[in-house]
Amino acid sequence: MSKILVINGSSRENGNTERLTSIMLENISHAHIHLRDYVIKPIIDKRHTVEGFSPVDDGYDQIIQSVLEHDILIFATPLYWYGMSGYMKNFIDRWSQSLRDKRFDFKKEMGMKKGFVVICGGDNPDMKGLPLIQQFQYIFNFVGLEYIGYIIGEGNAPDEVLQDERAIVQANHWNKFFKNL
Amino acid sequence: MSKILVINGSSRENGNTERLTSIMLENISHAHIHLRDYVIKPIIDKRHTVEGFSPVDDGYDQIIQSVLEHDILIFATPLYWYGMSGYMKNFIDRWSQSLRDKRFDFKKEMGMKKGFVVICGGDNPDMKGLPLIQQFQYIFNFVGLEYIGYIIGEGNAPDEVLQDERAIVQANHWNKFFKNL
Amino acid sequence: MSKILVINGSSRENGNTERLTSIMLENISHAHIHLRDYVIKPIIDKRHTVEGFSPVDDGYDQIIQSVLEHDILIFATPLYWYGMSGYMKNFIDRWSQSLRDKRFDFKKEMGMKKGFVVICGGDNPDMKGLPLIQQFQYIFNFVGLEYIGYIIGEGNAPDEVLQDERAIVQANHWNKFFKNL
Amino acid sequence: MSKILVINGSSRENGNTERLTSIMLENISHAHIHLRDYVIKPIIDKRHTVEGFSPVDDGYDQIIQSVLEHDILIFATPLYWYGMSGYMKNFIDRWSQSLRDKRFDFKKEMGMKKGFVVICGGDNPDMKGLPLIQQFQYIFNFVGLEYIGYIIGEGNAPDEVLQDERAIVQANHWNKFFKNL
Repeated sequence: MSKILVINGSSRENGNTERLTSIMLENISHAHIHLRDYVIKPIIDKRHTVEGFSPVDDGYDQIIQSVLEHDILIFATPLYWYGMSGYMKNFIDRWSQSLRDKRFDFKKEMGMKKGFVVICGGDNPDMKGLPLIQQFQYIFNFVGLEYIGYIIGEGNAPDEVLQDERAIVQANHWNKFFKNL
Repeated sequence: MSKILVINGSSRENGNTERLTSIMLENISHAHIHLRDYVIKPIIDKRHTVEGFSPVDDGYDQIIQSVLEHDILIFATPLYWYGMSGYMKNFIDRWSQSLRDKRFDFKKEMGMKKGFVVICGGDNPDMKGLPLIQQFQYIFNFVGLEYIGYIIGEGNAPDEVLQDERAIVQANHWNKFFKNL
Repeated sequence: MSKILVINGSSRENGNTERLTSIMLENISHAHIHLRDYVIKPIIDKRHTVEGFSPVDDGYDQIIQSVLEHDILIFATPLYWYGMSGYMKNFIDRWSQSLRDKRFDFKKEMGMKKGFVVICGGDNPDMKGLPLIQQFQYIFNFVGLEYIGYIIGEGNAPDEVLQDERAIVQANHWNKFFKNL
Repeated sequence: MSKILVINGSSRENGNTERLTSIMLENISHAHIHLRDYVIKPIIDKRHTVEGFSPVDDGYDQIIQSVLEHDILIFATPLYWYGMSGYMKNFIDRWSQSLRDKRFDFKKEMGMKKGFVVICGGDNPDMKGLPLIQQFQYIFNFVGLEYIGYIIGEGNAPDEVLQDERAIVQANHWNKFFKNL
């Protein structure tokens, strides 16, 4: 059975993104990481230095350990300024270091997994969230993650996404999908 | 005369983005902020709490002070994973807090400024950088920054962008433009 | 009650786009125009000539007459080469002539209507159809059509879209929406 | 030496797109097809019929003959309603028929060629033309055309693009590029 990991990029508890993701995964076993619970330092690009990347002492390695142990990665992020949150961006930026990490073959590992994207935001996210959907397509392609799909929900105030029926019916649809995996 | 501020989101010194921006601003007076020189904490979204945002003790306020004092903001970021760097994303995410800051009217101040975007990256940035260009359009629209234009340069290894003649001719073009402002 | 018009850009009968649109509008009164049933000549751009546009003798005027009589316009097009079909593109290109037509104020009329987009195609339309969704946003903005929403369905072979459960649940969702208008 | 073919989708003579393309190809040998000079019927999708596509009696075959004889295809189209013109869309839609044409292996032939895109339009084409650039990426990928690059010029009234210095410097840049091929 596929092991599912949610990587949540929100800065607050019980936000709309988390809510929508929970509906999608109702009664489905999964692990959940809130990036805000970890210190993740921004990358220092040393790809072109002689010494290469230095080990970084923060929470990143622990998250990657969990990533490697799961088959399906659900990137759940609020739409902050029409993009993924800084929490999630710093996390993904660090993948450049993982790609050079000798302890595993990051690209090969990711190439065996699948990815899904959940976005919630205000200000017409069905339209203004599309560049982020396209960005994730490029990210997934680069590491070989198969793009399962995405949901875009609308909501700013707490629980507002529960009123976005279009998002809810999609969450229910994907709930069936993940149950049948 | 217009006062120009470069906000640089790169993690390394003398990167391609910085190089291309320097060519564009050769012999033009401007200030330059490297976000990596500051601690900028990721936002904690308190828009929907009773108490609202708490003051954050880091380098953000100092940068905003500089932003407010300039007329043209040049967002110069390497293309990390087909988006702006985490450094820059954390910086922009914090604007949500500035929008509620009583010390100034952030949106009104930004509405009197103009913005420009410089992106450098590998892996076909002229194509795969377009979602980021679109994201900046939405960001600029939201705060009322007039979008002057953008340059996309190609380059990964140090100084590689100097070989991207298409980017260089555009940098030279914009150099004239900024000189004539 | 809102009067709904479907403008269908498919070249074949009972295609997937038509199927999906029918599900969305089940038991809802609406008119349906198949652009393939009309001769619509490509535009000859005379915006910058002294004499201006000449009347064109084809089916376009009849369709516009119907457009003007409805409140909600549903643009239903197969995804041909990652864009709207040539049938639909030729139809929309001619709007440039309608904008200068003295018999009505096209922009004002359109500004009182709402638009919706239905797309069906193969080859990962949820991703590769997004530029078309964005193009429609610009089109709608230009003439002032309010963008209600969109559905993207997957399907090439006849009736294949009926297997795309994600599209179907969305069609059902919008069915309720249009019934409650 | 590479043989260059311009496929022009404009409806008027000496338009901005044609002007910009001419600057780009100054003193470079090339052929030029104006789609408006041919009758190109919209496709009738018969991919899923027993009998398959029927031969169509119009100018399409003649253009394809020329396409097959060249190495570099320059798709030059005005930005009509934020997309390629209907002339060009009808032409490309017909490729679905060519893909099934027994007289040649269309995909293999195209896979040995390279493509370039020139777009001219008003209303902020550097931004609102980006979905079309992305659409061409998908089109080129599908048939295997290598995407050399693109220029976006601004201009509505005759010769207005000559004022768009940013487009002109790019045209001059690509002029050198094509000369050195």
